Amino acid sequence: MVTFASELYERQGIKGDRRRQIVQVLQAALDAVDPAAAVKRFAQRDGGALIVDGHTYDLTTIENIYVVGGGKADAPMAQAIEELLGDRISDGTLNVKYDHLLPTERITLREAGHPIPDDEGVAGSQRIADLLEQAGENDLVLCLISGGGSALMTLPVEGVTLDDMQTLTNALLRAGANIVEINTIRKHLDQLKGGKLARLAAPARVVSLILSDVVGNPLDSIASGPTVPDTTTFDDAWGLLRRYDLLGKIPESIETYLRQGVDGEIEDNPGEGSPVFERTQNVIVASNDLAAEAGQQAAAELRLNTLFLSTYVEGEAREVGKVFAAIGKEILASGRPIGRPACVIAGGETTVTLRGEGKGGRNQEMALAAALAVQGIDDVAVVCLATDGTDGPTDASGALAEGDTIARGRELGMDPWEYLEDNNSYPYFASLDDLLMTGPTHTNVNDLTFVFVW
Amino acid sequence: MVTFASELYERQGIKGDRRRQIVQVLQAALDAVDPAAAVKRFAQRDGGALIVDGHTYDLTTIENIYVVGGGKADAPMAQAIEELLGDRISDGTLNVKYDHLLPTERITLREAGHPIPDDEGVAGSQRIADLLEQAGENDLVLCLISGGGSALMTLPVEGVTLDDMQTLTNALLRAGANIVEINTIRKHLDQLKGGKLARLAAPARVVSLILSDVVGNPLDSIASGPTVPDTTTFDDAWGLLRRYDLLGKIPESIETYLRQGVDGEIEDNPGEGSPVFERTQNVIVASNDLAAEAGQQAAAELRLNTLFLSTYVEGEAREVGKVFAAIGKEILASGRPIGRPACVIAGGETTVTLRGEGKGGRNQEMALAAALAVQGIDDVAVVCLATDGTDGPTDASGALAEGDTIARGRELGMDPWEYLEDNNSYPYFASLDDLLMTGPTHTNVNDLTFVFVW
Repeated sequence: MVTFASELYERQGIKGDRRRQIVQVLQAALDAVDPAAAVKRFAQRDGGALIVDGHTYDLTTIENIYVVGGGKADAPMAQAIEELLGDRISDGTLNVKYDHLLPTERITLREAGHPIPDDEGVAGSQRIADLLEQAGENDLVLCLISGGGSALMTLPVEGVTLDDMQTLTNALLRAGANIVEINTIRKHLDQLKGGKLARLAAPARVVSLILSDVVGNPLDSIASGPTVPDTTTFDDAWGLLRRYDLLGKIPESIETYLRQGVDGEIEDNPGEGSPVFERTQNVIVASNDLAAEAGQQAAAELRLNTLFLSTYVEGEAREVGKVFAAIGKEILASGRPIGRPACVIAGGETTVTLRGEGKGGRNQEMALAAALAVQGIDDVAVVCLATDGTDGPTDASGALAEGDTIARGRELGMDPWEYLEDNNSYPYFASLDDLLMTGPTHTNVNDLTFVFVW
Repeated sequence: MVTFASELYERQGIKGDRRRQIVQVLQAALDAVDPAAAVKRFAQRDGGALIVDGHTYDLTTIENIYVVGGGKADAPMAQAIEELLGDRISDGTLNVKYDHLLPTERITLREAGHPIPDDEGVAGSQRIADLLEQAGENDLVLCLISGGGSALMTLPVEGVTLDDMQTLTNALLRAGANIVEINTIRKHLDQLKGGKLARLAAPARVVSLILSDVVGNPLDSIASGPTVPDTTTFDDAWGLLRRYDLLGKIPESIETYLRQGVDGEIEDNPGEGSPVFERTQNVIVASNDLAAEAGQQAAAELRLNTLFLSTYVEGEAREVGKVFAAIGKEILASGRPIGRPACVIAGGETTVTLRGEGKGGRNQEMALAAALAVQGIDDVAVVCLATDGTDGPTDASGALAEGDTIARGRELGMDPWEYLEDNNSYPYFASLDDLLMTGPTHTNVNDLTFVFVW
């Protein structure tokens, strides 16, 4: 449940009304991406058939259904699948993050390390691989994927250890490689990533239900794309090592393996056009844009004019916050791009460059910057929400910035610039009772930003 | 004339067509804020009457017309006024920046220092004050104001020198005061700022034609608001000195003068409701939103769907650029908020935190960041333009970012991150022939950003 930190929004008058509107819009957005609800929206049982996003699987002709996967939101997804398929599930094994277990009956949930992979994760991933090897032509593999799946489903290739992988990653980071480049190499050193989970499952049919935590929903990036074609090759991976001058400086096991790949001794990852994917269906069941759309619909039901701006928002939180404030100011000044009462909806994931020692998160920091930019302007609110309910290392999911946020802070003796410089947005909004509190939502589709102009 | 640095946009095929569209939109935006055209749009002669934005001034009952003012765009504004009123102008004196003279007949243009005020500016401002003293009830004072007017029209109060003012400003900056706070104090130490030009002109009628270079067009900020009510007081100014602990640490002349103001020995600046403004008409003749609207109209004529996003855009250029890229990506992916072919129009003024030793400007830097964010994505262009034609200390007015900007740069051996880190966007785009070149436009309504998605 979305609430403000205090009862403030329950107070009388226009301010209370507006806060209730905000809560309603945020709650609708979060409800839309609840992992279990998301699975059930895209996968339904129709008697003897399983219908997934328009595709019908005749369960009477399917021998075994296996459920595999990994990710932070996998436990509620698994529960939804058990509710749907019950004893038609032959076997299942999923890796979830420590302390993310929920009760299941036929699917085994294994706790594993995240964000740093650990041996538990490798053991669970080996069990997934073993299960996939069993799957035959008349079987159906349901793959449940959510954020964190890349770390949780880690299964290095023969001869390469977790330590080797960590050494490689550190070397690449030091050399300045970006995440796409790092993943290009890692996808060639893992038995499940880069489409290889689907290849292991073949000739079984594969249905992958994906809860996206990556801006723009690039299928090959979410959990390193275990069921989608890989667009990169051993040559690409080798080229990157050469480019960053890391040959001879990384674990020999890795160099040996990739060298064999380049020499054609090991089959490359299945790419676009590989027959593996002819029997694979990938469905994004929840994503930032689904949440944003639900928020937009809720705002429209409140008779607000709405504008769906973008779900690709990235950048330094404090700077991005200024742009959202600028949009609110224009609506107020000129009724452009939409008239009042208005709600502008956006999503994505910003970053925070740490400068201080304070406590906060990217959404709270964005809100503080927005508050500075809308200072003294009535009727505008910028609301910043982490959909997982945990914005940075805090128990808040975001914050609300309004025209009087800075003045109310000053009354309490708070200099907003000092708090911003110190990355200390949490205590700032906590003092004002303007933190958004949801508790952990068990989902994660990045962040949402709403600009309300009444 | 807007052109690209090279003949590139004249080439055949779709790329040339698109560049011609860009040029057409930018040119329309700039034409709309040409200072002379802007004056003529809002001030017309109808026989014996002068009509300014709907208000009619019967010239047959007006004895003298005096023209005063200051700003970087004042020379073409003065020419337009001379064209309109000719020998009805009794006298006129304006301060313009060095090397910004144009031939005039009845209005004297004086060159003065900008951005640091100098004695020439003070002498010219004294001449303005003297002229205003002459103006009587049946006279009309035309005040021409444009960007830079605050420095160019500097006339410290009795006993305070330019050096004192500079010392004060430096002390305030060191103490962490922001520009609004600095201006609050400066407006109380100058004979023209903060509505006092209008007060000097009383009982004459005043028409102020304002070319706005401040985001959001706050009348009291443009050239420090010589003809608009001041919302600040001597008490505010004194309170700021106290808050920043500067009492006893700034020139004695300043402290003495402000102390007299606080004690009521000197009349405070004319505020809202002062009778001075009953006979004053302030008209913004050119501004960022007028330019943006003209660009929007030109885009619509090219059959592009348009969205007028905001003219309040502020923030670090490289981060703001990512947000514009995000909007382009959403249009491409989902047709939201508008369908293709699309043009999103925005304006404002970003900032650049200097990190390197390179050559560039805020618009070019924003374009480079946008290019990184739309890397590999066809059919999107982010165009960033400084309307004064001079983006940073360069001869370019901005740059164009497209999906192949980064790839084309890499072909020439340029690492875009290196150029960005070094604030070196000018040579980057120069190498690609993707700089926008207009030459000095003699106007300044901040910056414009256009996102094209074809």
